[in-house]
Amino acid sequence: MRGNKFGKLFSFVSFGESHGNALGTVLDGVPAGLEVDLEELQRQLDRRAPGRVAGTTNRKEGDQAEVLSGVFEGKTLGTPIAIIVKNTNQRSEDYNKLKTEYRPGHADETTMNKYGFRDHRGGGRSSGRETLARVIAGYFAGLLIPKIKVTAYIAKMGPFESSVDDLKNSNDLAPYNFPLTEKNTEIKKYLLQLKASGESVGGRISILVEGCPTGLGEPAFDKLKADFAKSLLSIGACVSFSFGLGEEMANLKGSEVSSNRGNFGGIEGGISNGDDIFMTTTFKPTSTIGEKATAGRHDPCILPRAVPVVEAMIKCVIADHLLRQRAYGDGALNE
Amino acid sequence: MRGNKFGKLFSFVSFGESHGNALGTVLDGVPAGLEVDLEELQRQLDRRAPGRVAGTTNRKEGDQAEVLSGVFEGKTLGTPIAIIVKNTNQRSEDYNKLKTEYRPGHADETTMNKYGFRDHRGGGRSSGRETLARVIAGYFAGLLIPKIKVTAYIAKMGPFESSVDDLKNSNDLAPYNFPLTEKNTEIKKYLLQLKASGESVGGRISILVEGCPTGLGEPAFDKLKADFAKSLLSIGACVSFSFGLGEEMANLKGSEVSSNRGNFGGIEGGISNGDDIFMTTTFKPTSTIGEKATAGRHDPCILPRAVPVVEAMIKCVIADHLLRQRAYGDGALNE
Amino acid sequence: MRGNKFGKLFSFVSFGESHGNALGTVLDGVPAGLEVDLEELQRQLDRRAPGRVAGTTNRKEGDQAEVLSGVFEGKTLGTPIAIIVKNTNQRSEDYNKLKTEYRPGHADETTMNKYGFRDHRGGGRSSGRETLARVIAGYFAGLLIPKIKVTAYIAKMGPFESSVDDLKNSNDLAPYNFPLTEKNTEIKKYLLQLKASGESVGGRISILVEGCPTGLGEPAFDKLKADFAKSLLSIGACVSFSFGLGEEMANLKGSEVSSNRGNFGGIEGGISNGDDIFMTTTFKPTSTIGEKATAGRHDPCILPRAVPVVEAMIKCVIADHLLRQRAYGDGALNE
Amino acid sequence: MRGNKFGKLFSFVSFGESHGNALGTVLDGVPAGLEVDLEELQRQLDRRAPGRVAGTTNRKEGDQAEVLSGVFEGKTLGTPIAIIVKNTNQRSEDYNKLKTEYRPGHADETTMNKYGFRDHRGGGRSSGRETLARVIAGYFAGLLIPKIKVTAYIAKMGPFESSVDDLKNSNDLAPYNFPLTEKNTEIKKYLLQLKASGESVGGRISILVEGCPTGLGEPAFDKLKADFAKSLLSIGACVSFSFGLGEEMANLKGSEVSSNRGNFGGIEGGISNGDDIFMTTTFKPTSTIGEKATAGRHDPCILPRAVPVVEAMIKCVIADHLLRQRAYGDGALNE
Repeated sequence: MRGNKFGKLFSFVSFGESHGNALGTVLDGVPAGLEVDLEELQRQLDRRAPGRVAGTTNRKEGDQAEVLSGVFEGKTLGTPIAIIVKNTNQRSEDYNKLKTEYRPGHADETTMNKYGFRDHRGGGRSSGRETLARVIAGYFAGLLIPKIKVTAYIAKMGPFESSVDDLKNSNDLAPYNFPLTEKNTEIKKYLLQLKASGESVGGRISILVEGCPTGLGEPAFDKLKADFAKSLLSIGACVSFSFGLGEEMANLKGSEVSSNRGNFGGIEGGISNGDDIFMTTTFKPTSTIGEKATAGRHDPCILPRAVPVVEAMIKCVIADHLLRQRAYGDGALNE
Repeated sequence: MRGNKFGKLFSFVSFGESHGNALGTVLDGVPAGLEVDLEELQRQLDRRAPGRVAGTTNRKEGDQAEVLSGVFEGKTLGTPIAIIVKNTNQRSEDYNKLKTEYRPGHADETTMNKYGFRDHRGGGRSSGRETLARVIAGYFAGLLIPKIKVTAYIAKMGPFESSVDDLKNSNDLAPYNFPLTEKNTEIKKYLLQLKASGESVGGRISILVEGCPTGLGEPAFDKLKADFAKSLLSIGACVSFSFGLGEEMANLKGSEVSSNRGNFGGIEGGISNGDDIFMTTTFKPTSTIGEKATAGRHDPCILPRAVPVVEAMIKCVIADHLLRQRAYGDGALNE
Repeated sequence: MRGNKFGKLFSFVSFGESHGNALGTVLDGVPAGLEVDLEELQRQLDRRAPGRVAGTTNRKEGDQAEVLSGVFEGKTLGTPIAIIVKNTNQRSEDYNKLKTEYRPGHADETTMNKYGFRDHRGGGRSSGRETLARVIAGYFAGLLIPKIKVTAYIAKMGPFESSVDDLKNSNDLAPYNFPLTEKNTEIKKYLLQLKASGESVGGRISILVEGCPTGLGEPAFDKLKADFAKSLLSIGACVSFSFGLGEEMANLKGSEVSSNRGNFGGIEGGISNGDDIFMTTTFKPTSTIGEKATAGRHDPCILPRAVPVVEAMIKCVIADHLLRQRAYGDGALNE
Repeated sequence: MRGNKFGKLFSFVSFGESHGNALGTVLDGVPAGLEVDLEELQRQLDRRAPGRVAGTTNRKEGDQAEVLSGVFEGKTLGTPIAIIVKNTNQRSEDYNKLKTEYRPGHADETTMNKYGFRDHRGGGRSSGRETLARVIAGYFAGLLIPKIKVTAYIAKMGPFESSVDDLKNSNDLAPYNFPLTEKNTEIKKYLLQLKASGESVGGRISILVEGCPTGLGEPAFDKLKADFAKSLLSIGACVSFSFGLGEEMANLKGSEVSSNRGNFGGIEGGISNGDDIFMTTTFKPTSTIGEKATAGRHDPCILPRAVPVVEAMIKCVIADHLLRQRAYGDGALNE
């Protein structure tokens, strides 16, 4: 009831403060007998690892997933899957000065207002580290929907923009998750300059879902679009969600929209219609700027790291709705 | 689990098909002893009544709320409040032809795909009539948050645009919920022309929340912005959500954003910070166009009627989070 | 969150005060396409009708179910099924004297303590009339589990006792739901005497579930036995639950118990093992005694009317667990 | 949805197999600012430690709680509290023979039926070790209800029987949790003999709750008695629940019961009435008997160790209902 659980039939609990002993998740609702590839799980975690400005990741510093339960002889047991990531990079600096220092755009002050007490050594639950739990959950969600492809990519970051067609023409988006990978050298330079100047930048991430069957989503409150929106707006820096033509719909007439089913973005009446699903979300610039931002592994733009988190959340929503639809066994999906 | 319930501590179930016997709601989580003004409830329902193109409403045709339980001697009992609205305007036309006619942009086909069976006489659960339940719930949510003012208004509809400053300078927004009420005659003319030509138009609704205390919202998945997003995207024609600077954040640098706390739209780290909360959402043009759209009480633009529904959903989210915060009793809110 | 909802995947909300306008339920989670027999639903409601001391029921006075939504052309739509029963037998007596009269063993005083306000005209939510919602829900639960037979019967009422073998040797248990139907004349006499003397009596109801597949129930908190226990203890006058050998287990050694799988009552490790499930529950004597109890349709023993309520709750639990198991699709059940 | 979560506002997730890496819990809903005494938490865990036949516990072998999150500087943060207990006593025996060996009265076969796959090295989720999570949760629940005293005790174990009056006349019930502690030497002898003979025995545990305020519990499904019943029946070996006069109610008349409010066991209409609450539950004999039972730390009677688990579950239910009542703020509790 304090909002640390996501999903209904496929669900997971997220726990852990950024400067506590460990973060982690307990997944509930993963069916039994699914094969688990811990190497692939770790790769997903590495995709969201910090300090990727230069386009490289240092595996030794990586967040290591430890499976505590729910997996046996390489397969899921159908029981809760608990996985933790220990916090190892804690610096021994003097945290006392942070006790009453509230950073704008962060949760420092609102957390204090809410609880009357907080772990002032870092962002606590509002730290980006909390998304580790989401990426882990997304990996397991993926096991339930092997035929559905969820791809998030950077649609805009500073001067760099791309389209869904660019995505379709590209293969490996590493390390920046920007489809026009020929720009990667320019991006690296841009990010290094941003960081050197203590500046940050926002941007847009778009998501393409291919192979989603029709019939997912519920007609009233748990419309597929509503659950997608919640899943993305639950990510710290995310400030907008749209699907299909999105905001552009405000400028159109009915005849223009109805001429092409593709304009509905794969969702009609809140329920998937079998088409590709297309969504876009905006991320604000990271709030840490100035002198602090130039130090350590701090990222001047969260977008490259946010992409795997976005994909994970979308996968969790789809897996949840698939189980829900399967439970009731009505309709064409189940024939 | 089929998504007909909204909210956790303040919650309501929505039921009813557009052409069934009745629609309604059961509210669970309204504290005991609150005074109920059924006249005011009816006024809220009238605000979303159909056929308001001409700026008038015919009360006789209005949807009448019947209270079945939970209210006694004018006060809430703390028990479930069941309220129904009977479907009285059902036309005796030949529905058989609708059986296999799937309207683009509607839920007709996806509903069939989902359930394998549907009430083909109308939109069923996906009809706009379902929002009756939401407006009723919003009225009761309002009883829990008397000091918080939630105002939605049309920010854009066709050629008409307004700002939050326009809102602050206006009083009564009836009947179109557009702040520059001096434009009402023009709007009427515009809507009548749209209708006559069988056309429809989309637009934007913005929401201003004044007086929201700090500390509402949970740090992980149930961030206030996430629950607002879900609440609005659960409305049929809604295709986008943003808060604060919204999509504009994609074009900004961290230094530009952090210069003004107002840019965060009243929410930091997913938790209300005590400032005004500002949100915007996009509605697509209604999908019914052409010959059909010129007949009966059909609205060429859903926005004027969507405004009370938007307000209702936002109130429900706030009331729910207020109860959640009160339950735990931690933090400054409770001192 | 105020406990008016029961079940997870197959769920229903109960609403209504005994002296309000109507009671009812909204079922959520009934799959689409199931055939609905409203005559049979009414028969189930009639089984719990009041005033059956003499073994007869007056249909004209019966509680009539009105379907508001979720059923179309005789089949379930997969959408919420709302059904109400209007309160028609309200007497025009002076209720004011009841305002501060708290009946022992009733919820009068505790309701006042809880809410600070109540509908003093009757039992409110704590009235036996609330079980109408349960019987309706039980009817629909039964549609999901056509091959599973749930039979409750009176195992003890005053001097009358019966065994599960008696049940297996009997056919129609009407009107008293006591398997040794040759005693029905004696029972009628006993109940009429009790009523005449303003007295009431408690008893035991046992339940036999035949045809339950193995694999239902979850290993930790939602053990099948735990959900059965909650379902029955949620009935007003119910004061105990046991399954299998029940309390007798306190007097036995491991070797005695393990000798016969039947001793486990059909549930091992909280999960159904495919055997018949056997449970027993105790009902306290109705608290209304003395002069009041001799008047009107008041029942001196709740057990005959409680039997259909008990069956309904058990069916709801099984239907819910069946949907849960089907959702995950793991294990032998789904092959 | 797979039943590994207990509670609504005060809730916890339980995870871990008996022979996996670790078991543990994530608590959600503990308010911020409560002081945590890890020594006391460990004492509670030690009370349920295995191998206590001889009335002693070997601390070195004890289950050590590790706090991963949610506690900072000795106080709760209001965020999820994750605590794990590593499995250290795993024996390197040949588990292959257990793969198809289904022990009667255990979950071995039903687990296989349910999931089609299991961790055959032990009881998995159905092991008594799962109750570690419950005892941890119970400790934190206790922090929310410092003025409410929950005491469970052995009412019957083999030839030993005690009453609630015996409890009231005793102080420290260690190590057997039997109120007539002068019998402890006899009990020790009895248990050692049982174990030597490879036998086991069932029994009864009663619970006394003192200081519970009136107004807890909801009038329909979440009656206090219903949630207590579910909480106890969710413990592996528990086979019955009753409160107040319990099964004896089947033999009584209304006039006998209503003569004394104490007969209602502290709960009227499902809501606490401010009196002491009295409940009783039956545990079956442990299913492991014969040669196996004579070896290692196996307990011939689960009751002494079950007592802290029973107390924990009852505390969790009360804490949850207290938060629920506080959320709504209605009624006398909140004045």
